[in-house]
Amino acid sequence: MKVALAQVNPTVGEIEGNAARVLDHIEQARSAGAQLIVFPELVVFGYPPKDLVLRKDLVRKNVAAVERIASKCTPITAVVGYIQPDPSGEGKGNFNAAAVCADGVIQATYAKMLLPTYDVFDETRYFNAGTEVQTFLLATGKDQVCAGLTICEDLWNDRQFEGRRVYGIDPVERNVAAGADLLINLSASPYRAGVQQEREPLFAAQIRARGVTLVYVNQVGGNDDLIFDGASLVLGAKGEVLARAKAFAEDLVIVDLAKPRGARVETYPDRVGSIREALVLGMRDYIRKCGFEKVVIGLSGGIDSAVTAALAVEAVGPERVQGVAMPSRFSSSHSVEDARQLAEDLGIDFMIVPIEGVHRAMEEAVTPHFPVATRDTFTTTEENIQARIRGNILMALSNKLGLLLVTTGNKSELAVGYCTLYGDMCGGLAVLSDVPKTVVYELARHINESAGYPRIPQRTIAKVPSAELRENQTDQDTLPPYDILDAILERYVEREQAVDDIVGEGFDRKIVEQVARMVDRSEYKRKQAPVGLKVTSRAFGTGRRMPIAARHR
Amino acid sequence: MKVALAQVNPTVGEIEGNAARVLDHIEQARSAGAQLIVFPELVVFGYPPKDLVLRKDLVRKNVAAVERIASKCTPITAVVGYIQPDPSGEGKGNFNAAAVCADGVIQATYAKMLLPTYDVFDETRYFNAGTEVQTFLLATGKDQVCAGLTICEDLWNDRQFEGRRVYGIDPVERNVAAGADLLINLSASPYRAGVQQEREPLFAAQIRARGVTLVYVNQVGGNDDLIFDGASLVLGAKGEVLARAKAFAEDLVIVDLAKPRGARVETYPDRVGSIREALVLGMRDYIRKCGFEKVVIGLSGGIDSAVTAALAVEAVGPERVQGVAMPSRFSSSHSVEDARQLAEDLGIDFMIVPIEGVHRAMEEAVTPHFPVATRDTFTTTEENIQARIRGNILMALSNKLGLLLVTTGNKSELAVGYCTLYGDMCGGLAVLSDVPKTVVYELARHINESAGYPRIPQRTIAKVPSAELRENQTDQDTLPPYDILDAILERYVEREQAVDDIVGEGFDRKIVEQVARMVDRSEYKRKQAPVGLKVTSRAFGTGRRMPIAARHR
Repeated sequence: MKVALAQVNPTVGEIEGNAARVLDHIEQARSAGAQLIVFPELVVFGYPPKDLVLRKDLVRKNVAAVERIASKCTPITAVVGYIQPDPSGEGKGNFNAAAVCADGVIQATYAKMLLPTYDVFDETRYFNAGTEVQTFLLATGKDQVCAGLTICEDLWNDRQFEGRRVYGIDPVERNVAAGADLLINLSASPYRAGVQQEREPLFAAQIRARGVTLVYVNQVGGNDDLIFDGASLVLGAKGEVLARAKAFAEDLVIVDLAKPRGARVETYPDRVGSIREALVLGMRDYIRKCGFEKVVIGLSGGIDSAVTAALAVEAVGPERVQGVAMPSRFSSSHSVEDARQLAEDLGIDFMIVPIEGVHRAMEEAVTPHFPVATRDTFTTTEENIQARIRGNILMALSNKLGLLLVTTGNKSELAVGYCTLYGDMCGGLAVLSDVPKTVVYELARHINESAGYPRIPQRTIAKVPSAELRENQTDQDTLPPYDILDAILERYVEREQAVDDIVGEGFDRKIVEQVARMVDRSEYKRKQAPVGLKVTSRAFGTGRRMPIAARHR
Repeated sequence: MKVALAQVNPTVGEIEGNAARVLDHIEQARSAGAQLIVFPELVVFGYPPKDLVLRKDLVRKNVAAVERIASKCTPITAVVGYIQPDPSGEGKGNFNAAAVCADGVIQATYAKMLLPTYDVFDETRYFNAGTEVQTFLLATGKDQVCAGLTICEDLWNDRQFEGRRVYGIDPVERNVAAGADLLINLSASPYRAGVQQEREPLFAAQIRARGVTLVYVNQVGGNDDLIFDGASLVLGAKGEVLARAKAFAEDLVIVDLAKPRGARVETYPDRVGSIREALVLGMRDYIRKCGFEKVVIGLSGGIDSAVTAALAVEAVGPERVQGVAMPSRFSSSHSVEDARQLAEDLGIDFMIVPIEGVHRAMEEAVTPHFPVATRDTFTTTEENIQARIRGNILMALSNKLGLLLVTTGNKSELAVGYCTLYGDMCGGLAVLSDVPKTVVYELARHINESAGYPRIPQRTIAKVPSAELRENQTDQDTLPPYDILDAILERYVEREQAVDDIVGEGFDRKIVEQVARMVDRSEYKRKQAPVGLKVTSRAFGTGRRMPIAARHR
């Protein structure tokens, strides 16, 4: 039996377009002789649908789309993810469901049993949990296969959450008990660094014990903060990889389960490579799905903006990236030079908009309103003024030229609030907001190594990091060295460790307390940050929900 | 038996401080001869605790605090809301629990059964659902009372959600079956206009059928976007109100259940009055709990900033409010006059910071980078530049003087994106972001009527609304009349109605489509909006989660 893994990239809410994409893949799979084609979770609606689930007209439209898709399913069987309204007709909620479409109709449906509510997931907000397994038979020559359905989290049921709920239900076991020898999983499983190393052993362990084959089809593409990495799989009954689709790209892989040897097995990129590809895909899709043609990026000559610009060029091409340098009285001579050099290396448009005139006018406007004693003191107030002038300039270019402004701040800065709200935080998409500074350096080296030349200027990588918002400033005037800062942030932010526990691991108490205090005090800035691409297990944004007017130290 | 309703105002995460407040109320109740004292849901941690629940050190601290509280409970019984870690010790999650503290120890605990996951609530993200009722006996003279415990949503179990999950579990029924004749409910039930008219009949219906007495204790105070209105209750077995605590203020009400006639029954304010008090409390608590002393507000001479400033004065007093007018070349002569008049009426500090110098400097800086053909065209780009200069000025004052910048935009504007990101949207708290423009007018009249004089200048109320960002501009150049706009927004945003359904109610299709398009296109702005005080059933913010890079029209 030939199975097609349709790893597609839907846009959230764009039901007509997503359905057309599904139909196109069914046609391709049928031409290739596939008997079964499997799509990702909620492919018709796009994942995550968020509060669009509450719009009944859209849910109705998605049901109609699945019925239309089903009408084209012959002689092929398609398994399609969609939102299923309460079949009782009483309007008591929706299910995150899979439709088995064959012989021109929806022959069966399955509702996801395990609804995740951790990290970025809010599935009990939107869905009722299913309670019944659903298997279906596929004739294959003189034999037949019994296929069982699962959706995403259903396969992660044995995962241990420290201090959190575990499910106590095993959909895999129940499918096997119902006679399934082929397990199908429709997923929309977001990327984070290391996820693939977790997924494949977990899936293998799930099926090895039961002697069933797994067909896992994951969504691909960026939807706001989430990047879906694809890498759909067929695992044999011993847990061995029989097929793997591309990571970070649409794909259609067809596997003959009777003789799977020849199936395509794509390589999943290494850690830094996968972060890079994730950011490029996330940026490309955000730009495209928001309807922008071009992006604008402030280039400071520093490493964050250089890496962001290099990734933007990979995402949409150099002709669609506008670099802008905005030197001030505090800018070093090399900052504009390095920005210009970068723009040349990348082949992007470059303009220089000096801020001195506006800076002087702002000082004249506001300084008389400062208390006399503070007028000569240079504080963060004076630093922020400059960053906000730059924000205004970039937004004016964005507005006038129709460009998406992309912000360049990294996760370390955003964590401790070493950034200016309405200044360098301006923009529609934060590309590096989940990338710690130490990993920004790794990305820069990765980019230069794969290019075979210093695409990002060597001086940009080598220079001491500075915001250049006052004379002879460096980041380390204010922050601990980045390797220490990032190690503390990983523990405090990603792992939710207490200060005492982090100190217990050998970090200096004063530094840990300073970092924790800076993180806690910056919640209000992050509340107003743009959407940021998620590449770790815990990004700022929808997966981390902190109170602001709170005191817990 | 005397019961004390301890309607306190905790700060999220401030466990020591909250526990001290609990102990203080226990002491007061004991002195007054109360046998039982009831506190709100999660009073020790503060509600909503959000992702601080994931911090094990804080959960441990909250358990220790309850044990300390229990050690002081004699001869009084206290029912205290807290986070209870999995009692099995296996670390499989936490419960939203109530501890019955008596004779110096925690004698029993109850775990909330119904965990809300709609609107602003994410309780399955944080808690396991309880499965068992918990009653306890209280000796009263020669008789005894059997008290049953419920927490917030447990009492809302018969609520119908259109298109959403219903619970299928009735904790009230189960308490009655277990012999309860007194029903206790610990709540953290957020305010929204009309909620009180919904609560009391619902509670009455719950207990009337069962012939039990209800003691309902609600949290009071603002925590970020949520405002808890208190108004704790004792309802008699026929559903009649025996006691009602103050709305929007801390309170301790003691009721003798044997002869409840003399108990205090406070009046709940009318609709506009309650919105006003909610905003004042929400603002006061946000300012206080964030540690600010003073606020700064940009005064345009228009109604939104006037109402915001008037409410700020009610919240923290005139000496702690700084008004700033920032006239431009497009400001009408009356705009500064009206702002000055308002500042005089309110008795607040007032300063004028003209933006013309900075405006000119910005034009000189950016215009040469615009395409030649567009340099003379006045578009939203040129409008936004002015708003962002004002944002920069206000933030400079905020930073230098340590003031919290409060934004003044209303819900109608924010809904359709008639506001400038990083401009008039700058600030730490959006006071009116859930108040439709038509209700802003109602608030202005309410303020003036209760003052007995035009505290908000009559001309500010009477003038045609204008952003004054170009020559002779009015809001209605761009937007439908506010009464029509607000009626459409209520249907599209609050009720999630489809465009066709709204048109079916008699609205003009072109206008409805225009409004829906503007709402959908402004998600990116709202993503970066400050915390806004919630006063309707559906505010922008945590209770409305929309994708940005989505297409559904």
